[in-house]
Amino acid sequence: MKAIALNATLKASDGDKSSTEKMLELVLAELRKEGVEGGVVRLADFNIKPGVKSDEGEGDDWPELRSRILDADILVLGTPVWLGQPSSIAKRALERLNAFISEKDDGGRMPAYNRVAAVAVVGNEDGAHHISAELYQALNDVGFTLAPNAVCYWVGEAMGSKDFKDLPKVPDSVSDAAKMLARNTVHLARMLKEKGYQPVS
Amino acid sequence: MKAIALNATLKASDGDKSSTEKMLELVLAELRKEGVEGGVVRLADFNIKPGVKSDEGEGDDWPELRSRILDADILVLGTPVWLGQPSSIAKRALERLNAFISEKDDGGRMPAYNRVAAVAVVGNEDGAHHISAELYQALNDVGFTLAPNAVCYWVGEAMGSKDFKDLPKVPDSVSDAAKMLARNTVHLARMLKEKGYQPVS
Amino acid sequence: MKAIALNATLKASDGDKSSTEKMLELVLAELRKEGVEGGVVRLADFNIKPGVKSDEGEGDDWPELRSRILDADILVLGTPVWLGQPSSIAKRALERLNAFISEKDDGGRMPAYNRVAAVAVVGNEDGAHHISAELYQALNDVGFTLAPNAVCYWVGEAMGSKDFKDLPKVPDSVSDAAKMLARNTVHLARMLKEKGYQPVS
Amino acid sequence: MKAIALNATLKASDGDKSSTEKMLELVLAELRKEGVEGGVVRLADFNIKPGVKSDEGEGDDWPELRSRILDADILVLGTPVWLGQPSSIAKRALERLNAFISEKDDGGRMPAYNRVAAVAVVGNEDGAHHISAELYQALNDVGFTLAPNAVCYWVGEAMGSKDFKDLPKVPDSVSDAAKMLARNTVHLARMLKEKGYQPVS
Repeated sequence: MKAIALNATLKASDGDKSSTEKMLELVLAELRKEGVEGGVVRLADFNIKPGVKSDEGEGDDWPELRSRILDADILVLGTPVWLGQPSSIAKRALERLNAFISEKDDGGRMPAYNRVAAVAVVGNEDGAHHISAELYQALNDVGFTLAPNAVCYWVGEAMGSKDFKDLPKVPDSVSDAAKMLARNTVHLARMLKEKGYQPVS
Repeated sequence: MKAIALNATLKASDGDKSSTEKMLELVLAELRKEGVEGGVVRLADFNIKPGVKSDEGEGDDWPELRSRILDADILVLGTPVWLGQPSSIAKRALERLNAFISEKDDGGRMPAYNRVAAVAVVGNEDGAHHISAELYQALNDVGFTLAPNAVCYWVGEAMGSKDFKDLPKVPDSVSDAAKMLARNTVHLARMLKEKGYQPVS
Repeated sequence: MKAIALNATLKASDGDKSSTEKMLELVLAELRKEGVEGGVVRLADFNIKPGVKSDEGEGDDWPELRSRILDADILVLGTPVWLGQPSSIAKRALERLNAFISEKDDGGRMPAYNRVAAVAVVGNEDGAHHISAELYQALNDVGFTLAPNAVCYWVGEAMGSKDFKDLPKVPDSVSDAAKMLARNTVHLARMLKEKGYQPVS
Repeated sequence: MKAIALNATLKASDGDKSSTEKMLELVLAELRKEGVEGGVVRLADFNIKPGVKSDEGEGDDWPELRSRILDADILVLGTPVWLGQPSSIAKRALERLNAFISEKDDGGRMPAYNRVAAVAVVGNEDGAHHISAELYQALNDVGFTLAPNAVCYWVGEAMGSKDFKDLPKVPDSVSDAAKMLARNTVHLARMLKEKGYQPVS
């Protein structure tokens, strides 16, 4: 079983440390305990061209990312919170996944069918529920399945400025959520790998 | 396999015909083709008291509804669109389902685990994507699993006033969505009935 | 100048103390410093019937509330956070305000024109930005004007359970937000009282 | 009085015709009738670097755009609908406007204070209410004022594929909304130009 974790932070890898990265590593560690291998891809390191096709031509890095996403059984989409909303880079990835809607097979199944998605959200403050709502809907619209409690998140108190990466210790509630997310997501991915969704004729 | 469809229209059964009811009947018909039995419950006919507990005391009809929800393998939550948002009655049902979060078993599993949810949305105009986002998030937060393309919806053109119940024919895109929703949801519900989510120790 | 603050907590006045009430009193205190009088109305104490008309008949308390809302220059809508979303009671009030859309005068102006709205949100955790988004949109759709930074909110850290009403001291960031909200909202309400929106012929 | 309309379509100017552009031109035409001059800026033609500062360094076109935004009295943000949500380019612009929150003057006022914002949304189908909600909240958070009915939108029937740019005629409901938006927005912008928000000491 394979997972891919997309980090939609606004910072490239050569920038500051990313709180979203720390959260995704936490989720991946739990996935590994369930027998799933995988790593984080920093989206800001790639040239993901604007558009809603699977290939936007010359210089577009999306076809490579798309292929890595479809090569995995589990997709974890991680985003920081800005203004209570997902990052523009998370939105860019969703727009490119939009192409799946017009890439159904003869049975009406999109390329993401039989793959399970989960979400990670990190911010100084407020926004995680809304972000998981928007990401669930977009990921579900393009064909991913969602296990219960498919989000792992941390945000500080209202109008706070603490960073998740600077917390002396990951709160137990966050560790527990990562564990539960991994347990449920892998269970579902295993079952769908064994017997996938049936075509509609 | 059993399904329960909750109709969150603002109208009680003795009122006007409900477009949401028509949409839920469409989804139930497809579920029946997959071997699932079930019916629609009109929430406006019940006294669902405000609160976030499973029982809000004297005169509260929620305990009965809660028991019917947990008796089913599949929950379809149907809501009309008002101001681009789900109805207050849909929100009331979600608030009461909130209690599941504090009713986990020793393995961290909520009462809704191993049950699959889907969503139906009907309106004169615009709002279905947002409503599915909010409902997916709330239903997922309280323990339901979501199959891909878990929404069946219809809304008319911007600022329009056509009613789904008055359309001379259900659009093919809506029939197809209902069929796909049923196919995927039942597949998942069957697998989870056979082998449910494992506890986290 | 008059304000009305609607408290959309799920609890009636004879129940537990309301964190939303505390937040609304904070906002009202700042409005009073700007020369505006007003009080809090606990919506759960009223029978607001489901529907989208200004009067839903026998036993409906909305007509009285509607008249008090239109009697004020400023509306503050306060809601608790449940599942990251506004309460069903806040939604009920918005559904009833929906009627304004079909009550335009000959110049295309709804009854709420020249009135300014603001929002107050309180929860144990995460949800304030999304709630202000939904409330802004619904209030704006039914004719209210919004001053900058029209929300005053508090939520605790992710997955926390602290209550605003139990904080030993209101955080400075919250007091500042209340002050700014009051300053801006009253400025706008004064100007609109002097010279309101012009009709479209 | 000056307006600036930002077109957040995913297509650069040398690409296909933009439905969002057509909608923004409609709004600008109405603004001109109210004595406001202004034009459309196609954001996809610019290099808006990821980040949340007003200047993200070498090659960043945002400082120029920021200056044009602050030079105008009215901002109209136009976005296409993808997956029921605003475009990644609209989100990018909002992230950059986020910097206003830390650029308050001594009186607590952000650079956008006394400027009025409005929103334009165009899509094949469903998403306009949610998008206006998200844009209202973000624009309000960074200091803009919102007149009533501050959105002009068009989307087709559920799951439709018609483009606004291909409609033989702009629907009356859309023309009326553009007119109302312009009338209200200009009224407010004029008043705020005459007498702006007062500082909080």
